[in-house]
Amino acid sequence: MGHNLRIDGRRLSWRLEQLAQMGAIAGGGVSRLALTPADKDGRDLVVGWMTDLGLTVSVDGVGNVVGLRAGLEDGPPVMAGSHIDTVATGGRYDGNLGVMAGLEVMATLNDAGIVTRRPLAVAFFTNEEGSRFQPDMLGSLVYVGGLALDRALETKAIDGEPLGDALRRIGYAGPASVGHPAVHAYLELHVEQGPVLEAEGVTIGAVEGVQGISWTEFTIVGQSNHAGTTPMRLRHDAGYAAAEIAVFARRLARELGGDQVATVGAATLEPNLVNVVANKAVLTVDLRNTDEAQLQIAERRLFAFAEEVAAAEGVTCARRTLARFAPVAFDPHLVGRVEAIAGDMGLSVKRMPSGAGHDAQMLARVCPAAMIFVPSVKGISHNVAEYTAPEDLAAGADILLRLVLELAE
Amino acid sequence: MGHNLRIDGRRLSWRLEQLAQMGAIAGGGVSRLALTPADKDGRDLVVGWMTDLGLTVSVDGVGNVVGLRAGLEDGPPVMAGSHIDTVATGGRYDGNLGVMAGLEVMATLNDAGIVTRRPLAVAFFTNEEGSRFQPDMLGSLVYVGGLALDRALETKAIDGEPLGDALRRIGYAGPASVGHPAVHAYLELHVEQGPVLEAEGVTIGAVEGVQGISWTEFTIVGQSNHAGTTPMRLRHDAGYAAAEIAVFARRLARELGGDQVATVGAATLEPNLVNVVANKAVLTVDLRNTDEAQLQIAERRLFAFAEEVAAAEGVTCARRTLARFAPVAFDPHLVGRVEAIAGDMGLSVKRMPSGAGHDAQMLARVCPAAMIFVPSVKGISHNVAEYTAPEDLAAGADILLRLVLELAE
Repeated sequence: MGHNLRIDGRRLSWRLEQLAQMGAIAGGGVSRLALTPADKDGRDLVVGWMTDLGLTVSVDGVGNVVGLRAGLEDGPPVMAGSHIDTVATGGRYDGNLGVMAGLEVMATLNDAGIVTRRPLAVAFFTNEEGSRFQPDMLGSLVYVGGLALDRALETKAIDGEPLGDALRRIGYAGPASVGHPAVHAYLELHVEQGPVLEAEGVTIGAVEGVQGISWTEFTIVGQSNHAGTTPMRLRHDAGYAAAEIAVFARRLARELGGDQVATVGAATLEPNLVNVVANKAVLTVDLRNTDEAQLQIAERRLFAFAEEVAAAEGVTCARRTLARFAPVAFDPHLVGRVEAIAGDMGLSVKRMPSGAGHDAQMLARVCPAAMIFVPSVKGISHNVAEYTAPEDLAAGADILLRLVLELAE
Repeated sequence: MGHNLRIDGRRLSWRLEQLAQMGAIAGGGVSRLALTPADKDGRDLVVGWMTDLGLTVSVDGVGNVVGLRAGLEDGPPVMAGSHIDTVATGGRYDGNLGVMAGLEVMATLNDAGIVTRRPLAVAFFTNEEGSRFQPDMLGSLVYVGGLALDRALETKAIDGEPLGDALRRIGYAGPASVGHPAVHAYLELHVEQGPVLEAEGVTIGAVEGVQGISWTEFTIVGQSNHAGTTPMRLRHDAGYAAAEIAVFARRLARELGGDQVATVGAATLEPNLVNVVANKAVLTVDLRNTDEAQLQIAERRLFAFAEEVAAAEGVTCARRTLARFAPVAFDPHLVGRVEAIAGDMGLSVKRMPSGAGHDAQMLARVCPAAMIFVPSVKGISHNVAEYTAPEDLAAGADILLRLVLELAE
């Protein structure tokens, strides 16, 4: 059934473009931090489309939204999903593509008059990015039972608003139980957000798994003092210790090699004045590796270095884990089917890991899950210049359509 | 005349304590950034005291305040002065001591019924700290003709307010011509703001000169990108380049040795998120040395390193000079008199450089000038914990009194 069926690439691109108007910023990008007014606008638009497509929409207690399409039989649906929140200066594809492609699959089946044996679902999960609330992938983590709803609702935004309040304010504190419906299989189409597919001229990535993620916040406290009169040997400079840690993070990634990456994306000094030695510095280190053992080595070396440099400078250095996820392997059968379907359709395909965290890694805890990647031009993501060619978007959505149909029989 | 005269240490400490109530912050410190409402309160208090002491108060176009005490003859006064603005988390002695000691000298002479041959003056200069407007020592720089009044008034605060507007708002855009009165000799009593006097058990510093100061702001622009999916070798990380420069500044000071100090007190990243490679970083480097040639070597090495690290990382690095002053030598005769008077009074004394910039270095361009230092406990300054013992405050003020009397004859 439906073996020659194709999605409508123009309709898919049109929906992505419409959604990108919600929270649009200069340069063609999107700023739709989770549970902000812009996120509400995006959610309302997507929920309207779900309703128009005949899906039964449910919203759970953490704001995850599921649009259900009945099958010939009852039971757990085959779910396509992702997220629609973005980073503060994000693009229009990250997350959005997986949700819009899910809607496009539904629209295509509606047009063709196809009803599958199993039910189907399109879902988007709350706060995948982790830019406004931490941890990232919060909604899907709650969905699979990895974080209690009560605790999730108490999570404070960077602007101080509790997540529960934010949900009520935008009208997305829903009545559905978290974790329902149970899922037969989960598929997520996503832009690669890295340069590999484009560099190798490959259209489809069959994602084998997701890198493990370790986010640590270091808070360093020294002593503020006059920048001119304090001899170097008598300083307790929190900013200097922070800079040493940031430089070490780069060296660590280089020395460990392989898939190891390390990023210091956020850092602040206090009092942050030209002529005052900083008495406080806060910085974050983001470590990722596909190999859990290597990731643990990276953490141990980073923590040991931070303690050394703090002791040498006479400052204190406290650390706090902001997020920690072990590497995840996707369902081998589904990964194989992505690869095979791409081959059948004459598309170049490559098995690869994901460097970013995705909702699919959470769903993989409770059902077979897999991801399909399409190329990101220049590997740019989390940036207004994020771009994927329309034909690549359509190719990925066609594979999603084929695999949804297979799994729903 | 007046050889056995002593100032009243209790009255001096009382005035310092009263002034510290203006802009008081937790921990016994003061936040009185230049031309803020707190600074207006401090100015009003000091101007009231000047009037009570019978001084003729004039305010010039950049908000410098001079209180004049007539002598038996007309002519340029012997001036004691400093500043009353503070850093955001400052102490109660830095600057304030020099002004309060000047008032205490006037009060002592009033009580003793002494009228000097030359006129005397007590002055405080606008925005010495440079925390709200740049450059630092702005008021005294304008006073000695080193910066045109018009340009000074256009200077924008860190909060955006032009200096001219701020002066009018607090009522300190005065009618007096800048640079008037001309000054016969200038003396500034100040806390050391460093640990040397306390460590060596010495009460009085006879300050021979001031370190040269070089403030540079680096603005680094790279490319924001996903922290998980961008291989290390493909990054253009502005935050990493900034951290390398901060670490290099410390190494530079250590390698040059001598009086060289280097401080990165301010740094910000954009977008400043855990999982996004920073596309922009701004940091400041504060370099100081008593030797101009060495200071120039430090600048050249720093700038060369910044260019190298930027090229290697594929980011741009622009630099801007925020302040630049060559080292200053004080009047040798006055330095010798500070040393001799301290010895006559049975106080331990040491010749030393100043690591911080002071208004005295500006006045030194137009008249003989010198400074008297008293110990800072633990060398702490630009910090709410700044402290100098009352007997040291009084010892410094007594030397100021003796030297003022000598110079006024």
